[in-house]
Amino acid sequence: MANLNSVEDWKKNREDVNVGIMNKGNRNIKRFFNLDTAAYIDGALPAKTKELLGLSASMVLRCDDCITYHIIQAVLAGATDEELYETFNVALIVGGSIVIPHLRRAASRLEECRELEKKDPKLLSLEKSD
Amino acid sequence: MANLNSVEDWKKNREDVNVGIMNKGNRNIKRFFNLDTAAYIDGALPAKTKELLGLSASMVLRCDDCITYHIIQAVLAGATDEELYETFNVALIVGGSIVIPHLRRAASRLEECRELEKKDPKLLSLEKSD
Amino acid sequence: MANLNSVEDWKKNREDVNVGIMNKGNRNIKRFFNLDTAAYIDGALPAKTKELLGLSASMVLRCDDCITYHIIQAVLAGATDEELYETFNVALIVGGSIVIPHLRRAASRLEECRELEKKDPKLLSLEKSD
Amino acid sequence: MANLNSVEDWKKNREDVNVGIMNKGNRNIKRFFNLDTAAYIDGALPAKTKELLGLSASMVLRCDDCITYHIIQAVLAGATDEELYETFNVALIVGGSIVIPHLRRAASRLEECRELEKKDPKLLSLEKSD
Amino acid sequence: MANLNSVEDWKKNREDVNVGIMNKGNRNIKRFFNLDTAAYIDGALPAKTKELLGLSASMVLRCDDCITYHIIQAVLAGATDEELYETFNVALIVGGSIVIPHLRRAASRLEECRELEKKDPKLLSLEKSD
Amino acid sequence: MANLNSVEDWKKNREDVNVGIMNKGNRNIKRFFNLDTAAYIDGALPAKTKELLGLSASMVLRCDDCITYHIIQAVLAGATDEELYETFNVALIVGGSIVIPHLRRAASRLEECRELEKKDPKLLSLEKSD
Repeated sequence: MANLNSVEDWKKNREDVNVGIMNKGNRNIKRFFNLDTAAYIDGALPAKTKELLGLSASMVLRCDDCITYHIIQAVLAGATDEELYETFNVALIVGGSIVIPHLRRAASRLEECRELEKKDPKLLSLEKSD
Repeated sequence: MANLNSVEDWKKNREDVNVGIMNKGNRNIKRFFNLDTAAYIDGALPAKTKELLGLSASMVLRCDDCITYHIIQAVLAGATDEELYETFNVALIVGGSIVIPHLRRAASRLEECRELEKKDPKLLSLEKSD
Repeated sequence: MANLNSVEDWKKNREDVNVGIMNKGNRNIKRFFNLDTAAYIDGALPAKTKELLGLSASMVLRCDDCITYHIIQAVLAGATDEELYETFNVALIVGGSIVIPHLRRAASRLEECRELEKKDPKLLSLEKSD
Repeated sequence: MANLNSVEDWKKNREDVNVGIMNKGNRNIKRFFNLDTAAYIDGALPAKTKELLGLSASMVLRCDDCITYHIIQAVLAGATDEELYETFNVALIVGGSIVIPHLRRAASRLEECRELEKKDPKLLSLEKSD
Repeated sequence: MANLNSVEDWKKNREDVNVGIMNKGNRNIKRFFNLDTAAYIDGALPAKTKELLGLSASMVLRCDDCITYHIIQAVLAGATDEELYETFNVALIVGGSIVIPHLRRAASRLEECRELEKKDPKLLSLEKSD
Repeated sequence: MANLNSVEDWKKNREDVNVGIMNKGNRNIKRFFNLDTAAYIDGALPAKTKELLGLSASMVLRCDDCITYHIIQAVLAGATDEELYETFNVALIVGGSIVIPHLRRAASRLEECRELEKKDPKLLSLEKSD
């Protein structure tokens, strides 16, 4: 409903730029990217919960790209709208009204994800298909 | 003067998304929105001063949507350009040069608000007309 | 292990000051405190998960008092050390090395909470006993 | 009521360190300090309002020293408790629950300022007496 | 590679708005702009290093306009891609994964700056030509 | 000159808590600590410059522990007072007056480091002696 680029455009652009960064070959940046991925794998806490943790942290730090990323991952891990809205609410209470514009965009992103999910869940997946 | 969406587009989008969030029915989110509105009503401090407080807080936290919102409300409450620029300056001193890009957009927004105000102050009002 | 005030001193001071704020009678502040409490009650997500959401948000925003609060509440809700350390790790990855000093204090707080818990879980509870 | 250093100790330490920084002679740092002072002088907005703007900005950025400074200055400029609590509330709404620990310390500071003010308003003044 | 406005559009818009702000005549805002310029002039540290300091600070505070500005200035001061990527990495480690979307845009900006530099380094310069 | 714990107490506490965290054995947290160390090693940029980058980032994010850490490391890498004060000034301009209390503590820390350095530079070193 909001005037954002579509999730599909967002994914395409994200992958293009990642390739550019990887090609530059700063080894420590690559290692950080690996650690970032590792933080959200099933462990004592399930992946879904970890994505919601990443989402609440991203909302209070007000990073729209990070919010989009974690909403996609949470949806893929099976989070319901009610669970996502309760996460939005924790972030809103912790972070205050400054979070509201990001909450609005998050709500739009979630709606868009549900539509893509209905068509084909693979449209959401962030991994590059060969 | 800057390449932002117009204030009128901004208002339209904001209202559309708010309706979407309200329809989802997370009761605590709705209650937060009510508290947010209540914070800026005339009290020991007049509404104009409270909008300027919200503006300085939004500028140092660097939230363009929040800045646009509080500039509109401050203009509707009778704030002059001089008062708004002094508020911009407090935010700049407290928050540093990182505030400058938001100050530039704020200056553009204010200019746009004055033009809408000249045409018809109702064009600024954020409440939905029936 | 770190030179913080003890959790028990922290609780005592927190309650004293809350009483002072409530007595001042700003109604909107009281209503915010109620909304804050409501955000962490069992819902679509269990209370334990919500406390971990509040914890990750507090860690990336680097608020030691908030971190102490959510560690206590998460421990009371049954979170294990492994779950808490995985939450610490998500916050560390999202928020970066700037989170490390808070992670150090969080680790000390958790250790202290486990000791109090062994003695008597009531020592952790933040509600005022009559 | 909270376990902070007293306002008088805080003032003494602040002045000592400022002298140390000025002696180092980085000219741009000195010029910034002058601009900082100039931002809160009576203009289109009265000094009291500007101090409240600085206070709300400091609360959402969660800087206890800055909060103490602006509470002292606002009290000296004639701000009432009601005006200060309404400013606290705007900051709480904008900045969220992460502001609460700073709000608690702000409430303690304000109480302490009122006590010093009753004894002798000069005890609050931050300028160095000769 | 990313869908940003071009560096040349960004420069044009920045200059237009600066003129608007200067015309408004808030003297303290102008003085701050001068101090901002003075902070990056050769001194005990060379200008190139200072631009990298401004860049790392801007990246952890996540201000895309400030990042673009300091990348341009660092390139003009002779910074290499390796030096810039090591600066990106320090910012990534200090600021965490929340910096990644800004790192992606920074990498795109740097690539664009190198292309302009090849054509004509004057295309990068931010000073107004007469 | 300020009422901080001494640098030596700070180092002792830091090392104690690090041992506690390492013993808990969250592998990803350990890997992050390694990446953090790697970011400041000589490369295209010398270690001294990287420590100043870490310092400016830590100052604008207002983390006193991180500031103390990078001042110690910068002093060990040979940074002069003039270089450190110019770094302080960049951070002050980027981050605004909210940085001032941290600048005051940084100035005190630097003075303390110079005294330890005069006695014996090994007193500054953060590595554990056997």
